[in-house]
Amino acid sequence: MRRKVTLKQIAKELDVSISTVSKSLRDSPEISEDTRLKVQAFAKLYNYKPNNIALSLKNKKTKTIGIIIPEIVHHFFATVISGIEQVANECGYNVIVCLSDESFDKEVINMEMLANGSTDGFIMSLSKETQQKKDFHHLQEVINQGMPVVLFDRISNDILCDKVIIDDQLAAYEATNFLISKGLKKIALLTTVDYVSVGKLRTDGYLNVLHDHGIEVDENLIIRIEDTEHCDEKINELLENQSIDAILAVNELFAVTALKLAMSKGIKIPEDLSVVAFTDGIISKYSTPTITTISQNGIKMGRKAAEMLIKRLELEDEEDEHYKTEIIETNLIIRESTKS
Amino acid sequence: MRRKVTLKQIAKELDVSISTVSKSLRDSPEISEDTRLKVQAFAKLYNYKPNNIALSLKNKKTKTIGIIIPEIVHHFFATVISGIEQVANECGYNVIVCLSDESFDKEVINMEMLANGSTDGFIMSLSKETQQKKDFHHLQEVINQGMPVVLFDRISNDILCDKVIIDDQLAAYEATNFLISKGLKKIALLTTVDYVSVGKLRTDGYLNVLHDHGIEVDENLIIRIEDTEHCDEKINELLENQSIDAILAVNELFAVTALKLAMSKGIKIPEDLSVVAFTDGIISKYSTPTITTISQNGIKMGRKAAEMLIKRLELEDEEDEHYKTEIIETNLIIRESTKS
Repeated sequence: MRRKVTLKQIAKELDVSISTVSKSLRDSPEISEDTRLKVQAFAKLYNYKPNNIALSLKNKKTKTIGIIIPEIVHHFFATVISGIEQVANECGYNVIVCLSDESFDKEVINMEMLANGSTDGFIMSLSKETQQKKDFHHLQEVINQGMPVVLFDRISNDILCDKVIIDDQLAAYEATNFLISKGLKKIALLTTVDYVSVGKLRTDGYLNVLHDHGIEVDENLIIRIEDTEHCDEKINELLENQSIDAILAVNELFAVTALKLAMSKGIKIPEDLSVVAFTDGIISKYSTPTITTISQNGIKMGRKAAEMLIKRLELEDEEDEHYKTEIIETNLIIRESTKS
Repeated sequence: MRRKVTLKQIAKELDVSISTVSKSLRDSPEISEDTRLKVQAFAKLYNYKPNNIALSLKNKKTKTIGIIIPEIVHHFFATVISGIEQVANECGYNVIVCLSDESFDKEVINMEMLANGSTDGFIMSLSKETQQKKDFHHLQEVINQGMPVVLFDRISNDILCDKVIIDDQLAAYEATNFLISKGLKKIALLTTVDYVSVGKLRTDGYLNVLHDHGIEVDENLIIRIEDTEHCDEKINELLENQSIDAILAVNELFAVTALKLAMSKGIKIPEDLSVVAFTDGIISKYSTPTITTISQNGIKMGRKAAEMLIKRLELEDEEDEHYKTEIIETNLIIRESTKS
């Protein structure tokens, strides 16, 4: 292996500051494109490797995986953590969990804290605010320092790293198709605001299947819910004002709320209204009637994310840096809320 | 303030090894009672303060709280974490969560990892295995090193530290009393095995109220469930073989399972059978019928635990070491699963 060049050497060679080199390697817009490209080409030529912080981290393995998730009172994230824990335990790793509470700042603070010698790498799902801001410098920073990151569920294509997702668009397509195959056509969609990546993809899947079946899209049937607090109100409005025969909900909380509101109005489930929800959690399993769901396989997603991270942590040859995006299969779990 | 005496000085003065001093201060049974008492008296006399590790920790505040809980796929623990997060954020602290997965060894490993410079103190709920083994040396160790610990929910009286609990016995007493006040007498109890402290206390509350009303205890109506896997089977047996008119369940999973099994047998809720559950989680809120629950106020418990920990972390005068046990009030949330 060639001897590694340092940030300092690159700076000296190109007659720029160390900070300029560091920022250029992070693709910072603060640096002119000219300089950035020059630094990057030079670094590549001289096989530049992670900086000193990263090197010292590499030598001092913590055998700990840092997880950052948007919230914890959410069955899906809890199951992903279980999956990560399983593989981590099998491989002799510990797991530390931090919450962003859907806040960009908290995500940044948590990453900094954990990157500071507590963990070898990260498994993360982005906060709503991060997805809205599209500011990923904190992730870029730890990746550039040589700490691997695996994103799951709420990801961004702007970040080069390993990812684990479900095909949200396909899953929404198939679930809606299932409803159409039962002869249902007036299908409402209960979704989130568009900047949440998975909400957007699920909405696209819903729109595509309607299009493929020549069913006209009725914007009145697409309910975008910003937060769960206004969930009741918005769903009530839908049930009062629109004639629908099915609902696809992007999470089970929206689904069970719709189901209970409908029943309270004397609407029979599934005779008058069929309900399908994303995420197979405990609500869907224990509600009456039980709810047909798209299983996101949280455990499997967590296991896969942990496998990818540990594989990268234990890579001998650092040249092999092809990032992968693994797609976890979903399946429809048919229960009592849809016609048989 | 008097100058602090060191472990080494105590050892020299008493002509014993440093290790003997350290173990004596931890009340280790490896050391004879004679020596232990001598060392402890001497340490007290000379105002012995936490050892060097602790001192260096004291100086290098991490502003981070470590939480160790038995499991994450559990709404109650998730709400406690939310409560801790609220207060931590208000006071400028970060929060790190680790899971014991109900394993003693994992609890020990997590504590060691977090105590090693990652956190200033701990908020914990003991694993089943730790409660069964009654081995608390890992907690004792960090407490002796000057890192405060606040225990919540699953605690032990063998550990001297701050605690936050609900009065499980009183809550079970009141919930059962509520059923008795509705004229119900054949009340079954779905509980856990006795070494889980809260299960035991809830069972005691149930037994006490029956005794106070002169209702004979029927051991056949007390179902001790080791794990949720055998929950269905055991509850089915109860419903098949016993004539009961009410159920008190120590968690909502047992309650909803009983409710669904009963309904599948044509038993009407609440006409034929009333159901009350501990822990007001999402299952009880969204099941049909909704379930009457004892609210454990997870958020409040988490907030109180964080307040107690942060107060202790920020204590100027270390003399004030009276440990407190705070009792969070419970309340009965009456829903559709009990007669009105």
